[in-house]
Amino acid sequence: MKRAASEDQLLSWLRGRIPEEATDPLLGDDAALLPRGGPWAVTVDSQIAGIHFDPDLDPAVVARRLLAVNLSDIAATGARPAYAFLALSATPGFDHRRFFSALLADCRRHAVRLAGGDLARQPAATTATLTLLGTLPPGGHRLRRSAAAAGDELWLGGTVGESAAGRRLIDSGARLRGSKVELPEGLSQSSVALRAAARRAVRRHLLPVPQLELGRWLGRQRRAAAIDVSDGLSRDLSRLSRESAVGALVVAEDLPLSDHFLPLCQRIGCDPWELVLGGGEDYVLLFTLPAGRRPPAHFACRRIGEMKASRRLHWTLGGARALLPDRGWDHLSK
Amino acid sequence: MKRAASEDQLLSWLRGRIPEEATDPLLGDDAALLPRGGPWAVTVDSQIAGIHFDPDLDPAVVARRLLAVNLSDIAATGARPAYAFLALSATPGFDHRRFFSALLADCRRHAVRLAGGDLARQPAATTATLTLLGTLPPGGHRLRRSAAAAGDELWLGGTVGESAAGRRLIDSGARLRGSKVELPEGLSQSSVALRAAARRAVRRHLLPVPQLELGRWLGRQRRAAAIDVSDGLSRDLSRLSRESAVGALVVAEDLPLSDHFLPLCQRIGCDPWELVLGGGEDYVLLFTLPAGRRPPAHFACRRIGEMKASRRLHWTLGGARALLPDRGWDHLSK
Repeated sequence: MKRAASEDQLLSWLRGRIPEEATDPLLGDDAALLPRGGPWAVTVDSQIAGIHFDPDLDPAVVARRLLAVNLSDIAATGARPAYAFLALSATPGFDHRRFFSALLADCRRHAVRLAGGDLARQPAATTATLTLLGTLPPGGHRLRRSAAAAGDELWLGGTVGESAAGRRLIDSGARLRGSKVELPEGLSQSSVALRAAARRAVRRHLLPVPQLELGRWLGRQRRAAAIDVSDGLSRDLSRLSRESAVGALVVAEDLPLSDHFLPLCQRIGCDPWELVLGGGEDYVLLFTLPAGRRPPAHFACRRIGEMKASRRLHWTLGGARALLPDRGWDHLSK
Repeated sequence: MKRAASEDQLLSWLRGRIPEEATDPLLGDDAALLPRGGPWAVTVDSQIAGIHFDPDLDPAVVARRLLAVNLSDIAATGARPAYAFLALSATPGFDHRRFFSALLADCRRHAVRLAGGDLARQPAATTATLTLLGTLPPGGHRLRRSAAAAGDELWLGGTVGESAAGRRLIDSGARLRGSKVELPEGLSQSSVALRAAARRAVRRHLLPVPQLELGRWLGRQRRAAAIDVSDGLSRDLSRLSRESAVGALVVAEDLPLSDHFLPLCQRIGCDPWELVLGGGEDYVLLFTLPAGRRPPAHFACRRIGEMKASRRLHWTLGGARALLPDRGWDHLSK
């Protein structure tokens, strides 16, 4: 059966797929009861058809992306994810079971338990909202945006801009079908390396990888500030700096870029700096550490600048210094 | 300024309106950090334009209704509401500040703190999802649907059907403007009493009153089962009975109806039993207590039947006994 016949049938199907429900049921009451514990890190993030993903995207990918973007928020606090609550309002014909199968599989991978939710119909744009609760490991600090100080070094947990390039490719017709990325016609004459870069960008956009381990490492440091780059490096750096009441200087040449990023941007007609600074949905951690402190090499982080006492944000490119342009994703005005 | 210029501006506006933010900030990081505590009752419920409310409904009423339906879920577990997380995706022109002002005012009234959320645009139907966390009072039991036993008496915390009558009136053109309900033309020749009943029904539908105190009283009883009637008495009784592995017999004549409910139904051309059994969105508690145990009189609850060992649901009307029709709101198939 592809579609759930009713909410109660879907609930019963779900309960049979969550092993813990047999001994410690959380689903099926008006509210789930979580055990005493904490402190809890709580985050909420939505994925909306036509805004965050293409309406014909596989519901399994929608589910995995929804969990990943919420896990990225939990990563930025240094917590360990624990419980998920889903509100899903879907347009007619939505394949609920495909969505839930993928969600439960990725929840298991991250030791997250789906503990409740709400199902509804939606007239036009499928909307999925996940609330994720994580616990701070005993003795772990909480990572905040406000802990940066002048003189700290500024780091990135991974490349930026690639996800936005992937979004442009999807806007031009690229699609993930099963595990294979189909590229737009226009790229068929490109080199093998460029097409591989384009496929990676599409995958990176649709299935971001939350940096949970890095977040927990940062949470064990004496002092670190962190934010996950969801709305663009420039905007999210501006938030971290504002909360910490400091400024920053970013060295453009030190920004980590994905393989073949510059030729890919050229091929799809995008300004690479536009994507790097303002593209967003990178879901890597942007963080600060006291000068001289380095994350372990296996995290492959890159130092991209330093925090300054003056509250302005600057960047240098080819030796010239300028104000960092305030670009990025605004959830209301765009 | 009626519309928020950007997400960051709206966040800063919000922080200025939540007194606790000054000393113990929860907003503004990737996730909020809640103190150690619990056990936590967690519920999630959405309000979607075109499904749960008319797209031209005052955003302040949308906000109050959203909080009320979630509080009703918390009431059904016997918990005390504590923290709210909002995911709001609104269509262009939505008055965010009007929405948030009303939400914060009603949060204060219930000692709920808005602790985080997510804002987005929505192409077609404004969708608001609230996650609400409540704490169980120390020593309080958790109310569950599964605690009913054969021989228990079945109770309702208030009238049913009135909200559904209100929805029909809204479908026919009734509107809440400020604090005044405007009725459809067709009711202008009706009696003063009938028009007053119609106005109450519209208000009841738009602004339900969660039964938090009753829920906490039930949570202090040695044994009680409870559910909030959101999808219709018949469907929600069926859920409570199934979770408890018992049946029920409802006495139709004992069902509490609002003043002038029957003439109102006649006037708007509805079968009253259809609304009473299957209308839904009543947001009163349906609960069981061991025989002879009564809730305090000030809750104005009504005993409407009893639980049976046979797992069927029956009702009697005019002395005749029949299977209770399986009516009600299904969030997926309707």
